[in-house]
Amino acid sequence: LFTIALLLLVSGHSARAQQKNPYENTTRPLIERGLKDLSAYALLSELSEGIGPRLSGSEGAAKAVVWAKAKMEALGFQNVRLLPCKVPHWVRGEGENGGYIVDGREQSLSLCALGGSVPTPSEGITADVIEVHSLAEAEKLGERGKGKIVFFNRPMDPTKVNTGEAYGGAVEQRFGGASAAAKSGAVAVLVRSMTLAIDDAPHTGSMGYADRVPKIPAAAISTLAAEHLSALLKAGQTVKVRLKLTCQSLPDADSASVIGEIVGSEKPNEVIVMGGHLDSWDLGRGANDDGTGCVHAMEALSLIQRLGWKPKRTLRVVLFMNEENGGRGAMSYAEEAKKSSQKHIAAIESDDGGFAPMGFGVTATPDQWRRIRRWAKALTPINADRLTEGGGGADIGPLAPLGAALFGLAPTDQRYFDYHHSRHDTIDKVNPRELELGAIALAILSWRLSEEGLPGKSETMQKQ
Amino acid sequence: LFTIALLLLVSGHSARAQQKNPYENTTRPLIERGLKDLSAYALLSELSEGIGPRLSGSEGAAKAVVWAKAKMEALGFQNVRLLPCKVPHWVRGEGENGGYIVDGREQSLSLCALGGSVPTPSEGITADVIEVHSLAEAEKLGERGKGKIVFFNRPMDPTKVNTGEAYGGAVEQRFGGASAAAKSGAVAVLVRSMTLAIDDAPHTGSMGYADRVPKIPAAAISTLAAEHLSALLKAGQTVKVRLKLTCQSLPDADSASVIGEIVGSEKPNEVIVMGGHLDSWDLGRGANDDGTGCVHAMEALSLIQRLGWKPKRTLRVVLFMNEENGGRGAMSYAEEAKKSSQKHIAAIESDDGGFAPMGFGVTATPDQWRRIRRWAKALTPINADRLTEGGGGADIGPLAPLGAALFGLAPTDQRYFDYHHSRHDTIDKVNPRELELGAIALAILSWRLSEEGLPGKSETMQKQ
Repeated sequence: LFTIALLLLVSGHSARAQQKNPYENTTRPLIERGLKDLSAYALLSELSEGIGPRLSGSEGAAKAVVWAKAKMEALGFQNVRLLPCKVPHWVRGEGENGGYIVDGREQSLSLCALGGSVPTPSEGITADVIEVHSLAEAEKLGERGKGKIVFFNRPMDPTKVNTGEAYGGAVEQRFGGASAAAKSGAVAVLVRSMTLAIDDAPHTGSMGYADRVPKIPAAAISTLAAEHLSALLKAGQTVKVRLKLTCQSLPDADSASVIGEIVGSEKPNEVIVMGGHLDSWDLGRGANDDGTGCVHAMEALSLIQRLGWKPKRTLRVVLFMNEENGGRGAMSYAEEAKKSSQKHIAAIESDDGGFAPMGFGVTATPDQWRRIRRWAKALTPINADRLTEGGGGADIGPLAPLGAALFGLAPTDQRYFDYHHSRHDTIDKVNPRELELGAIALAILSWRLSEEGLPGKSETMQKQ
Repeated sequence: LFTIALLLLVSGHSARAQQKNPYENTTRPLIERGLKDLSAYALLSELSEGIGPRLSGSEGAAKAVVWAKAKMEALGFQNVRLLPCKVPHWVRGEGENGGYIVDGREQSLSLCALGGSVPTPSEGITADVIEVHSLAEAEKLGERGKGKIVFFNRPMDPTKVNTGEAYGGAVEQRFGGASAAAKSGAVAVLVRSMTLAIDDAPHTGSMGYADRVPKIPAAAISTLAAEHLSALLKAGQTVKVRLKLTCQSLPDADSASVIGEIVGSEKPNEVIVMGGHLDSWDLGRGANDDGTGCVHAMEALSLIQRLGWKPKRTLRVVLFMNEENGGRGAMSYAEEAKKSSQKHIAAIESDDGGFAPMGFGVTATPDQWRRIRRWAKALTPINADRLTEGGGGADIGPLAPLGAALFGLAPTDQRYFDYHHSRHDTIDKVNPRELELGAIALAILSWRLSEEGLPGKSETMQKQ
């Protein structure tokens, strides 16, 4: 009985069949070395814990640039350099706060300015609140919106399995709510935080102002506050909100993206880019957004380096500056790429967190897809072989017109927006092995790209 | 520019193509209702937070049985009942502790008794420590093991992607270490905790004693303590350990598994079982092991019920008692099933945590596999279509000889052993949406089984 129990215990958790994989020799070493070293987590710790928040133009962002360059040099990458860009320089300031007032009594409201918002006057703004659920509804308020604080409260749709899709279906309120409400004469907007979690942390994020419309202050409130405010309004209460925002936009600042590579041994002028963004919002510590993407790419290249492998095509890590509120790093990189004699055959972005990878979203031609689909088998041993149509990311999108196939790492995404852009975006939410598996996924894919290239414009160029 | 930025922001996260799914009508409602209600988490909160730890024979286990029966009745399940079983009744006692002694100074050692261990004398055991890495090494110590505390320190293999496989490769030390060391005259064993995390929480778990070998006390120490102890020994230090365990085995106790079902409308005698185990180890609160499995099954059946669907075959939830240290619930259920005129066509177990589901491990005949493979498409919308060869679980394994196809839910598994059997197994590690997706996976699979059945012995019986 003792022996049987022992056998059952041992076999129960290890029954999955091992099958021979055609890419065994080029995937297994990456997996074993990665999971043994877990170096991605050590890198993330330096970036997210050591440096912390790094909004474009901030001291943290400047430190991150210095760190990334030094780290890439220490890792032995080639041609390590900065690619300068001018970035928007928005600062939150000190002492933003607010409250809601019912029957003359004020209670605290958990809020934060949205990135890019104008401040309130120093005495704040106090006004009646009116709840809406779309930009169109805000624009149609007309007289009823005049002098009001408009409260956008359409939640992310919880019935979407893909949380990114739920985010995409709600985020217009955050980005465009202020100008929509201003058209009806509103004096400020509150926006329900972009998260599926119900808690008391406000989530910031970018917003913009349309031309020829007054710029009014915009803040996110926590989902718990949104639920509470909405319940009061539904109960027929007159609710005033007092809002004080201390943020301001300073002149554009000097910053840079950080680049390092291993030059291809056979086709150095065919480039595969992989990266994430180095900047982050200010409320958390930019762990999952997007410290994990940065270290995914750094560790992927470093893994290949540590194994002593020589890529045939150039593998380049780009840590983009200013994804969150401007995309200036992406633009300056794409401009440089356009002028370059090198050919960008593919770009891989990781900007959806450091959770266990499921696969990649892929934007490619049918010819390219035929080759890429074969590579799924290389990703099967880490359960990351789910290749879906459409993908890329904000930082690599501008490389599509240059003929690059685009890949966006797709980690399990249920927890991502719980942390995104809030004080919860800290390293304790990241599991070292899940993070490393993401880096291994990038290493496997980029290695296949470097070995085999992709059909399309790149092969035409080759023949010239 | 404002409009373009808005469009980019909205589309960037929602680009994945939607494709028509042949199972759309029977999966989409489960997904939408599940993700809207998130009821699995509410159930888990009652079980894990409300009741807490529930080791077989404990007051918590008895409360869990009462709770589960009442809850199934409240959910409207049919034929809700208890299936009695006698369970081992091991108790930890109060005040277990230990320390390691170098140069006469003692420092605290983070440890816990392994489940089933005998106690130490009340004054404890103090002896020199010797480190080994396998059962064979312990058995071969001979004279060198005499009077020693043998320390098993072979880590789970971090290079395995599948953490269950890593567990399976190390857990013999926990289960069989005491008897292996006792053969060489050891007086007690310490076992490195079965986790890939390096931290200070000891992880308990079952152990057993071989016949005709002295029964010596067995404790797990945290991985941090194991690393430290090993470093001291490698440095040539003589290290003594003092160990006091207060545990004891009481006479077997009365307990029960809890069963509820929806009777099949067309083939009530064909049964599909789904479940997890109601008992848990005592150190945490049995959240991921296996509160999540229990509520996966309860919520799956409740979802089908809430949608008003009538399964053709009987869908039965079984919450097994005593998986952790005896399997008595599984045995009594299999015995009953063997005698029953009903036919168990399939059994689904969830005992690998409440993380985002990737798919199922499947043990089935080639004929059955052909049908099951088609159903992967029904699981694609929740990214849970990874069907791998081999699977089931300790509680449903005994149903295989009755002809049941076995399914084991396979969630992402990187975090599971970080919490497993330790004080970390609490509900804050569970994401409500990931948990619900597991329940939806069970609902989708069990619905397909109830609609289509499986080829094999079940169809032969039908013809009779």
